Amino acid sequence: MKEKVTIAIDAMGGDFGPKPIVEGLIQALHEKEFNTILVGDKEKIVQYLPSGHLKRVRIHHCNDVIGMHESASVALKRKDSSIYQAVELVRSKEADAVVSAGHSGATMAVSISRIGRLSNVKRPPLATLMPNINLEHSLLLDVGIVVDATPQNLFEFAIMGKVYAKEVMGVTSPKIGLLSNGEEDSKGNELTKEAFKLMQKLEGFVGNVEGRDIFNGEVHVIVTDGFTGNVVLKTSEGVAKTITDFMRQEIEKSLSAKIGALLMKRKVFKHLKKRIDYAEYGGAPLLGIKGCSIVSHGSSNAKAIKNAIFQAIKFSRLDISHKIEEALNRYQ
Amino acid sequence: MKEKVTIAIDAMGGDFGPKPIVEGLIQALHEKEFNTILVGDKEKIVQYLPSGHLKRVRIHHCNDVIGMHESASVALKRKDSSIYQAVELVRSKEADAVVSAGHSGATMAVSISRIGRLSNVKRPPLATLMPNINLEHSLLLDVGIVVDATPQNLFEFAIMGKVYAKEVMGVTSPKIGLLSNGEEDSKGNELTKEAFKLMQKLEGFVGNVEGRDIFNGEVHVIVTDGFTGNVVLKTSEGVAKTITDFMRQEIEKSLSAKIGALLMKRKVFKHLKKRIDYAEYGGAPLLGIKGCSIVSHGSSNAKAIKNAIFQAIKFSRLDISHKIEEALNRYQ
Repeated sequence: MKEKVTIAIDAMGGDFGPKPIVEGLIQALHEKEFNTILVGDKEKIVQYLPSGHLKRVRIHHCNDVIGMHESASVALKRKDSSIYQAVELVRSKEADAVVSAGHSGATMAVSISRIGRLSNVKRPPLATLMPNINLEHSLLLDVGIVVDATPQNLFEFAIMGKVYAKEVMGVTSPKIGLLSNGEEDSKGNELTKEAFKLMQKLEGFVGNVEGRDIFNGEVHVIVTDGFTGNVVLKTSEGVAKTITDFMRQEIEKSLSAKIGALLMKRKVFKHLKKRIDYAEYGGAPLLGIKGCSIVSHGSSNAKAIKNAIFQAIKFSRLDISHKIEEALNRYQ
Repeated sequence: MKEKVTIAIDAMGGDFGPKPIVEGLIQALHEKEFNTILVGDKEKIVQYLPSGHLKRVRIHHCNDVIGMHESASVALKRKDSSIYQAVELVRSKEADAVVSAGHSGATMAVSISRIGRLSNVKRPPLATLMPNINLEHSLLLDVGIVVDATPQNLFEFAIMGKVYAKEVMGVTSPKIGLLSNGEEDSKGNELTKEAFKLMQKLEGFVGNVEGRDIFNGEVHVIVTDGFTGNVVLKTSEGVAKTITDFMRQEIEKSLSAKIGALLMKRKVFKHLKKRIDYAEYGGAPLLGIKGCSIVSHGSSNAKAIKNAIFQAIKFSRLDISHKIEEALNRYQ
């Protein structure tokens, strides 16, 4: 285990500019020991950095930022952008990990291209933690990169997810499910039916699972292609938002409901928010690359950034990439 | 428009036997004029049928029932089963529509095979109404039949969904979206990118939509393949259940929260339940067949059955199948 890791942070990415990012970093520095490099426009960054912290934080200046609505395809050409420069620090081994709340497509493209895939990984997936009623969390992957996956891709995702669940999430014997349109072995489309056969050799594989099993504690890792995973992720956010918006609307209409909501606020709604809020668990790790890259939500607040940094520290200290490489070798 | 339609009902299907089905039928008969044939074990059915209703209800006796956990593949051979017999009544034109809360795979397989596809439909999809914050509902299709779809399949789903939205849901100019992993035109997998091109000639097509757009009123019809649609449906149910279960757990732990919940019960929670409860909108229509088949949830209560019957009446009176056939002809 590495003693002290270095985390490069894209200070310019995200919907709210450097403020929540620098604040999240400061919170993280109060709680854990690590080195850090903030990447971006120095002048803008120092505004938010209390002078006492200037010694603990290295600033790597660059001028360009990839906007949230630009195409990800420009990312590899914009070598002076904060995300490119932050990733380069991992490539050059000056940093162990990169955290970015910037353009997620750009973060993924540059990370995969510049840090590079592990030699035995065909396509690196993006994994995300999902809230769960009976477990701390479950891990869903891929959620947006490999939209046209092969059975072999899904098999590799399963192995990578298992390593992450075991090492980072601390699950002794992770249960792995293949997302399908029914639990029976015979269910699935052409892709998942072939993937099912490959996954049968994997210890911990429980077979097909359904959409609801992401949230009920049946499995720790849910494997799917990047198209379906992305749709599932956004559907889940949509349902949660619709329910909370709807309750809010109805509460507004009635005085007794308003009083009721007030009584439930601290004990119920606050816990619910904590449970479904991505800020609580940081960002989405990109698995299968030669280093660590954490893709945070564009609208991350300071807490989300702090938790993403903690995730990057844990990932790097435990050398997850190396463990993934070893695990994949065992099945090849 | 047909004056009086005849609805065949599988009385034996569903998780709770004939009771909620017969009760739902009686409720429906109190509210609307239609003829009906209850299909199943006569002795069991009459137990729940008040003698005053015996005149209005024809019973078509049969001995067999396809169990909820049997394989759908047996359905076509079990010719004396309630679902097979109910579908045969539509095939023979004795009934206009069939409603079943029994084995959904069997209902779909027998309906497609025995009632038959419309001549210009390659694969009939199953459509379902989804709750929505800004609209009455949105329509999602396919949710479980065509797991390996072609772009042409998705294009046909879009046309069929548009007809249903316009005629049954009463939307003057339905907006149709293609479910994808991002809103930009460039997003999608191989399947949706090709389908996108075909759908561009369809009036009302708004382009790619994301999982969250199912619930926010952006579109009336969401088109996807049966694998993704089924995963989306079950994920949505899973999220809604997780949130309500979680709130229930937390409410139990605190007296003030219990009082708060009581104050919110009538004005908020009851409305929320109504909004997300499938019993409110009946069942899922199978589109693109030469008749009407409504696939109801296995755990349907009387209200869900009543609403499914109303859906079947509306579908048949408006001759939706014929309108779908005409609409498809216009694009071929």
